[in-house]
Amino acid sequence: MVLGGGKQFVQDEEKQQLLLEEHTEKHFTAGEVVRDVIIGVSDGLTVPFALAAGLSGANASSALVLTAGLAEVAAGAISMGLGGYLAAKSEADHYHRELQREQDEIDTVPDVEAAEIADILSQYGLAPQEYGPVVTSLRNNPKAWLEFMMKFELGLEKPEPRRALVSAATIALSYVAGGLVPLLPYVFVPEAGRAMAVSVAVTLAALLFFGFVKGRFTGDRPFLSAVQTTIVGALASAAAYAMARAVQSI
Amino acid sequence: MVLGGGKQFVQDEEKQQLLLEEHTEKHFTAGEVVRDVIIGVSDGLTVPFALAAGLSGANASSALVLTAGLAEVAAGAISMGLGGYLAAKSEADHYHRELQREQDEIDTVPDVEAAEIADILSQYGLAPQEYGPVVTSLRNNPKAWLEFMMKFELGLEKPEPRRALVSAATIALSYVAGGLVPLLPYVFVPEAGRAMAVSVAVTLAALLFFGFVKGRFTGDRPFLSAVQTTIVGALASAAAYAMARAVQSI
Repeated sequence: MVLGGGKQFVQDEEKQQLLLEEHTEKHFTAGEVVRDVIIGVSDGLTVPFALAAGLSGANASSALVLTAGLAEVAAGAISMGLGGYLAAKSEADHYHRELQREQDEIDTVPDVEAAEIADILSQYGLAPQEYGPVVTSLRNNPKAWLEFMMKFELGLEKPEPRRALVSAATIALSYVAGGLVPLLPYVFVPEAGRAMAVSVAVTLAALLFFGFVKGRFTGDRPFLSAVQTTIVGALASAAAYAMARAVQSI
Repeated sequence: MVLGGGKQFVQDEEKQQLLLEEHTEKHFTAGEVVRDVIIGVSDGLTVPFALAAGLSGANASSALVLTAGLAEVAAGAISMGLGGYLAAKSEADHYHRELQREQDEIDTVPDVEAAEIADILSQYGLAPQEYGPVVTSLRNNPKAWLEFMMKFELGLEKPEPRRALVSAATIALSYVAGGLVPLLPYVFVPEAGRAMAVSVAVTLAALLFFGFVKGRFTGDRPFLSAVQTTIVGALASAAAYAMARAVQSI
């Protein structure tokens, strides 16, 4: 039956290739850049917006709200951007450390690593005579063996080299772009109260739109995503407003 | 040779188990809760710190710096916490959508999915007679087949049910904890300039300590991590300070 399975698949190989080619995978995964833009914009739209609303609630002038808001945008962009850079960097370092460790284990304790292949495959109900040939083949192909262990034992994907830098720049710029939306009204409207009203209207609209687009990209229901994103922004600014009021009244 | 490989492994199975038991995996991966604490504290230590420094640079009073700082902490905690909640939620939804889709494909186009198993395994230099038995076995065990495709085709891990809520609470509380450190000096020192000096000293020390601990947990070199984390905080507050000054001088 084992060899039967093998033979059958040798014969079917061409058929398989045809099947694979005509079958386009419909599985969706948001690209990493899209994910970074989403991280940056959603925070950028939310926190400076909430801070500005909070300060307006504390009777600050538009000039001061703008000062605080832009200072926050600068700080947030650098914190998130460099944070994103270091996170991606440390992810890549982690991958290479694990790669080296796995390579060492394959060199020094090959029987253990071979037993780990067997252990992994047996979790899927495979019998020794079924996974045996796989283990034997991988042992004869150390490069493929290493890749197999990285993916199937550790679940680690090879990171792109320039990923960290791109991620940092994307998140930072997205944060600035998002953060300027709620702050612009304070540039043109000197009276903070009025500026806040405009800022709230503009930003809630932006949150709805952005949440919708986000939903489209991440595969969530766009309208649900739009509402959720807007509620987060509204709650955050309400909390900031209440907090500012409370501190003022002390 | 195929059956040979199989036989050999039937015989070696007990030996393998012993090997696996005596071999403790040394691979390190930071727990998700630790990761959430790190996300929250690093941003909490950085952004409110930078904002406070920036406003002090704009000759704001300690009371106002505190108002803005606490408003920012409230906004940031909610934005990051709920953001973390929605992210984890949408990750879980994504997993279940893909699980359903994969199940449908196994039911409706089993030959295609079988060809995908072959395609995945052949990437590791496996010949049809080597992966054939695996494909055959998985086809006879639909539950294991589905799990195999989720992990090895899509690289998706089953999410914990309560993950989203725990993640939200952890990030939010960590952000508040981190954010209070740079703000406390402004509570006790009325003159913003002096308060800033204290805040800078206290927060840089906290960033060094936190970066060191972070490095220990993530497997990075602790001292390097301490320096990197501190530099991010310093750069962010320098940028916020410069931005506040610039806006003021307009």
